[in-house]
Amino acid sequence: MGFARADLTEDKFLGGQLALIQPRKGYRAGVDPVFLAASIAAHPGESVLDLGCGVGAAALCLGARVQGLRLVGVERQPDYADLARMNAFDNDIDMEVFTGDLTALPSEVKEESFDHVIMNPPYHLRQRSTTSADPGREAALFEDTPLALWIDAATKRLKPRGYLTIIQKAERLPEILRGMDDRLGSMLVKPLAPREGRAAVLVLVQARKGGRGAFRLASPLILHDGTEHVGDTESYRREVSAILREGAHLPLW
Amino acid sequence: MGFARADLTEDKFLGGQLALIQPRKGYRAGVDPVFLAASIAAHPGESVLDLGCGVGAAALCLGARVQGLRLVGVERQPDYADLARMNAFDNDIDMEVFTGDLTALPSEVKEESFDHVIMNPPYHLRQRSTTSADPGREAALFEDTPLALWIDAATKRLKPRGYLTIIQKAERLPEILRGMDDRLGSMLVKPLAPREGRAAVLVLVQARKGGRGAFRLASPLILHDGTEHVGDTESYRREVSAILREGAHLPLW
Repeated sequence: MGFARADLTEDKFLGGQLALIQPRKGYRAGVDPVFLAASIAAHPGESVLDLGCGVGAAALCLGARVQGLRLVGVERQPDYADLARMNAFDNDIDMEVFTGDLTALPSEVKEESFDHVIMNPPYHLRQRSTTSADPGREAALFEDTPLALWIDAATKRLKPRGYLTIIQKAERLPEILRGMDDRLGSMLVKPLAPREGRAAVLVLVQARKGGRGAFRLASPLILHDGTEHVGDTESYRREVSAILREGAHLPLW
Repeated sequence: MGFARADLTEDKFLGGQLALIQPRKGYRAGVDPVFLAASIAAHPGESVLDLGCGVGAAALCLGARVQGLRLVGVERQPDYADLARMNAFDNDIDMEVFTGDLTALPSEVKEESFDHVIMNPPYHLRQRSTTSADPGREAALFEDTPLALWIDAATKRLKPRGYLTIIQKAERLPEILRGMDDRLGSMLVKPLAPREGRAAVLVLVQARKGGRGAFRLASPLILHDGTEHVGDTESYRREVSAILREGAHLPLW
């Protein structure tokens, strides 16, 4: 374990149904993996691969809601993979966690296919103002290529008719849609907007391997009531609070 | 003129500000070109190209709202182009209409560049259930390639920093985004949904030539109040009625 105890925090999720140890600094699971997990219509007996699982937030939130899933996580950073294993154990949820890169998945993972692949890729910011001697290399390292690689790796691991679900910043929706090739169909976008009348900040994007349905743009999930922030406390809408605090399902359609 | 008088109807738009002659059968302008025109933030003195202008509905709605525009339309079907010219004349709006295909634009159009290109391409339905001996050819003839060609033709005709705006069925959003290459940026999607909580049926997609802003997914424009249709009359929301009946501007952002 590469983290000292003082570098870690324990945070409650789903109204205390889940307690996750995570690093105090760096990437910290917030509401995003909770929304991702809530959106997955998984049934007992199905298998779920969480690509880039971090400390396991999305997979474990899903495991807390749906019993009897086979949960598998892959995480590139060994320290985070260790935390994911520990979090699964401490929360008494079966989850197998592999340390590995999505471009070179461990053979055990490559030999398995899944009913669901879920992912919450890092929210890289566009380096639009950066000038590079080699724009192609810069793009490959920092931008569009990675999301396409995430989607390709996920698609390969899906069973026929299996579902890929991604949560990501809304501004990267074009990259996500461009990254989905003919192996995927029945695409569905669910925007998440802070308030009525405001632009989406996040999108949940779902696609089905071998799906043939038309693309659908669902109504936004509005997170807060009113037109502006009032006071110093969160004021999630009732249905959002049910997702975050009670572990309710978030139907995408 | 290829149409007999009995084949034509005269329809009022913008609460009677505009009267358009159009064929009784085949493609008929409805609310879609009105929304398209309403979304264009054009200023007097600017130039606007309506690609595939049909009988001129979008360009003429825009010309009715904003004075002093240079309006140019291109229409492949000579009968429709004739109607567009007649409609412009009858409504006392200056609009130059060329008969031509967007893949082989008339030289006069190719020599000009525009502040705005607007388009309401035909709503081809996906032939998902069709099996073809040559799926690539089928796709090229009926599907993705055409929208990409529309977007390419439009992009070439835009001035630097000019705006391309498209209205299209929501299910074709992925094709539109995939059809936009690096010449376009600052993309914005405005969904149009029939009611609160319902999926988008149409999308307005805007992009700027040379734009460098991030993609934005705006809040939906909700067309009707309530959760279901009541009675036998239309019941547009107040702001929608202002667009359709009074020629109000529809801000995309």
